[in-house]
Amino acid sequence: MHVRFRLGATIQCSGPLHNEAAAAIERTIDGANTVLFHKGVPRDVEPSEIGKIQSWEIQENVLCLEIESGAYTRAHDALFRFRKQIATALGKLRIGVRGIEITHFEILVPGDVPEDLIPRLPFIREVKRREGTVELSLNVSAADLENRIPDRIVRLIEEKVQARTYGGKAEHWELIYQSPSRSRTFEKDPTEVMLEKGWVKHGASRGQWIYGPQVVQLFRAFEKIVEQEIIRPLGFSEMIFPKLVPWEVCMRSGHAKGVYPEIYYVSTPKTRDPAYWEDIADYFKVTGHVWVEKIRERIDGPIGLMSYAQCPPFWPFVQGETLANDSLPLRVFDRSGTSHRYESGGIHGIERVDEFHRIEIVWLGTVDQTVAIASDLHTAYRHVFEDLLELEWRAAKVTPWFMAQEGMIGSCGCEAVGTTDYEAYLPYSNSWLEFQNVSVNGDKYPTGFNVKIQSGEECWSGCSGIGLERWTAAFLAQKGFDPAEWPEEVAKRTGELRSIFKFL
Amino acid sequence: MHVRFRLGATIQCSGPLHNEAAAAIERTIDGANTVLFHKGVPRDVEPSEIGKIQSWEIQENVLCLEIESGAYTRAHDALFRFRKQIATALGKLRIGVRGIEITHFEILVPGDVPEDLIPRLPFIREVKRREGTVELSLNVSAADLENRIPDRIVRLIEEKVQARTYGGKAEHWELIYQSPSRSRTFEKDPTEVMLEKGWVKHGASRGQWIYGPQVVQLFRAFEKIVEQEIIRPLGFSEMIFPKLVPWEVCMRSGHAKGVYPEIYYVSTPKTRDPAYWEDIADYFKVTGHVWVEKIRERIDGPIGLMSYAQCPPFWPFVQGETLANDSLPLRVFDRSGTSHRYESGGIHGIERVDEFHRIEIVWLGTVDQTVAIASDLHTAYRHVFEDLLELEWRAAKVTPWFMAQEGMIGSCGCEAVGTTDYEAYLPYSNSWLEFQNVSVNGDKYPTGFNVKIQSGEECWSGCSGIGLERWTAAFLAQKGFDPAEWPEEVAKRTGELRSIFKFL
Repeated sequence: MHVRFRLGATIQCSGPLHNEAAAAIERTIDGANTVLFHKGVPRDVEPSEIGKIQSWEIQENVLCLEIESGAYTRAHDALFRFRKQIATALGKLRIGVRGIEITHFEILVPGDVPEDLIPRLPFIREVKRREGTVELSLNVSAADLENRIPDRIVRLIEEKVQARTYGGKAEHWELIYQSPSRSRTFEKDPTEVMLEKGWVKHGASRGQWIYGPQVVQLFRAFEKIVEQEIIRPLGFSEMIFPKLVPWEVCMRSGHAKGVYPEIYYVSTPKTRDPAYWEDIADYFKVTGHVWVEKIRERIDGPIGLMSYAQCPPFWPFVQGETLANDSLPLRVFDRSGTSHRYESGGIHGIERVDEFHRIEIVWLGTVDQTVAIASDLHTAYRHVFEDLLELEWRAAKVTPWFMAQEGMIGSCGCEAVGTTDYEAYLPYSNSWLEFQNVSVNGDKYPTGFNVKIQSGEECWSGCSGIGLERWTAAFLAQKGFDPAEWPEEVAKRTGELRSIFKFL
Repeated sequence: MHVRFRLGATIQCSGPLHNEAAAAIERTIDGANTVLFHKGVPRDVEPSEIGKIQSWEIQENVLCLEIESGAYTRAHDALFRFRKQIATALGKLRIGVRGIEITHFEILVPGDVPEDLIPRLPFIREVKRREGTVELSLNVSAADLENRIPDRIVRLIEEKVQARTYGGKAEHWELIYQSPSRSRTFEKDPTEVMLEKGWVKHGASRGQWIYGPQVVQLFRAFEKIVEQEIIRPLGFSEMIFPKLVPWEVCMRSGHAKGVYPEIYYVSTPKTRDPAYWEDIADYFKVTGHVWVEKIRERIDGPIGLMSYAQCPPFWPFVQGETLANDSLPLRVFDRSGTSHRYESGGIHGIERVDEFHRIEIVWLGTVDQTVAIASDLHTAYRHVFEDLLELEWRAAKVTPWFMAQEGMIGSCGCEAVGTTDYEAYLPYSNSWLEFQNVSVNGDKYPTGFNVKIQSGEECWSGCSGIGLERWTAAFLAQKGFDPAEWPEEVAKRTGELRSIFKFL
């Protein structure tokens, strides 16, 4: 037994449905049930699976319908197909079809779907259970049906059931490379040492640091290595991606599917008129406190979030475009600002923070081009970690980040699509830190932002995030704080460390 | 006639106030009115200006007081002085003072203060007018009085009256330098040309651009000039300032006094628990829309704002510290991310945007050191604009930015403190664009963040914001888009412009 749909609808007409009109309606319904609703349905489908007008009644100007279906020509699809045909039939009699109202709508989902897998949404008015079936009574308008709300509810429940069934499995993690081990000369937590040395101080907000000159010298040394060894040789050009990300971007990137628990939300003032804000300014002047509750009433949104994944706001640059073959692959990067994640609380080092700095590399082209660049990046990174930073590290194929962020799990089904995490060994905690990644995202973004290739070939993209905090944490945890002990390639780019602050 | 304060209060005691206690109260009140309340008041002050207990009454355990004052030993100060003394007097009789309740509190402000200058705050219950006086009835607790709410209300009204009186005057603007004019060879709006050329595209949010490689090459060329000609020769070290600014920082920087109409507000999820957010994720999956109204109920804050002035979040690095003499002057800069302002709507070029990129320079030290660095910066900037960028520009002393942002106007009273704006001529609009500034902020920040100097000398600070969008807008508006026509010092640092995008 499969999912079933049941609806009641009334169709308002411009005149009474007597005699000729009633006859036309009867003919049209017979035709719909036997021909119209069967169009496009495979031959071997059970008739009970196909949409059918089960009963009808005329009340003056109004035609009342009861429609039921399984998965083929679903009740709501049947309704809209019928509306078109009845409009034509009645039009010949100079009767117009005015509007449709949905009097009831039920989805019957087979199986004992656990209660917590039924979405809590305003469209779902009531949930009943009988004989191994869950019956959802929906509160929907004709517009909601045209927007395919029932179909999406069914798919959502199927996804939830599937996630529950397979959810027990661990996330995918498969080692693909492990570097030789290195001699271990340093065993402290680098953040604690940096705090002692005054290289960093806590920022005023959670999970946020203010970086003194010495740390920034290291950040910039790593940035130079990335520029000289990776970005320039592989032909990437610098762009600037926006750092405030409105919902429009998340809706296309897929982040709107599940990023809510860990983002910083952004809202805008309802107006720039200073008079509108005067009492809030006065409140601070009189009390010394910011009037947060009142501010909540005076702002719109949230309109979106502070940059989270860094690359999505690039995509409007190519949105809706067809890319010339000879311009591909496109290779760009951004390092123009911060990313923000609402991480779990508590004190932690610079390796897990709410506000961080990342060089984000993005490329797009044909499937082959996209996969080839990922491969070139792997080679270049390996050279950097082995020969320049001299790290103890490993690489693993993992659940693609976009599946993890959208609440999916497991591996993604296509060998070439996926994320490789780079992990560095942290002697102080005897653990591995994910310090960067490379992802081939398949057609996810080109499809979401409607980007095509001139040749008609499938467009794919990839991205790679280089976390400066995490490179620094990994490097210092393994190499310690004496630049004389650092690999030459890092030390020469860092220069002499500048200690400019001296507090009593 | 001056401002007057009038209050009624009840003091709850641990036992009945009979006989001895009543006598002690009478003695203490007489002493307070003749001695205690007169302490610290200049001799020539009219007695009616000084706080006085006008009447009192005992009701079992409770002492009821009526106190009135002018500006000296204000009614509420008198109350707290008296509480201390009566506690001692009754303590001797083994009667404890329990709590104070304020039964009424009035402020009488002389003059016909216009109605719109009376703050609209929850503390102000009623406003009456009689005989040229405005009487404010407050709704305040004893804690509010200890927090000096009435005094701050009076000062706020005085400020508003003063602003109204002098508010008609234009903002301060005084030309201090004008460059020679340059031959004008280009007359187009540079943003429109960049759009045509595909150098920039609108970001998905308002007042936001996505910058293609060519613009970023220009940004980076300007950054190199700043580094080579200004930052390094003048001894500035790079730091990284946070980009999410919580209220705590604004309260100390003074921005909490008036920045509300033009900031982007930041809020946090009430919890990271995915179950808490599941219905919001489901709503998107089912409707394709983000459930903004529901999200509003699920977030805390706003906790602060996206970086607005760039330098305030540096200050917690030195907050509460005493700086060693030989570490001064401290010279730092930040270029680690975006600044955000909610600008007035409508389409505008890259010279007026909601999201922009700026190199922010900050220095602090003694008064002489701070003023000297501002002077060195002026010299260095002049060299850059005249000899390297070859701009037509001018400099003007203006209302200090922090006075403008806090709703004050006019010049600030101290010759050395203030802001110099640098403006470039825009041929396409025959107007001048403020493209950067230098400010000596006096002791504003060191006082706000409690920073001291070892020697005990006054600590001052300065800041200078270099807006990359505005440098670019000014440069392109004057020099046009043919790099062959650009000053050599810019062209050689920009390199060949990279056009990597090709759309059909």
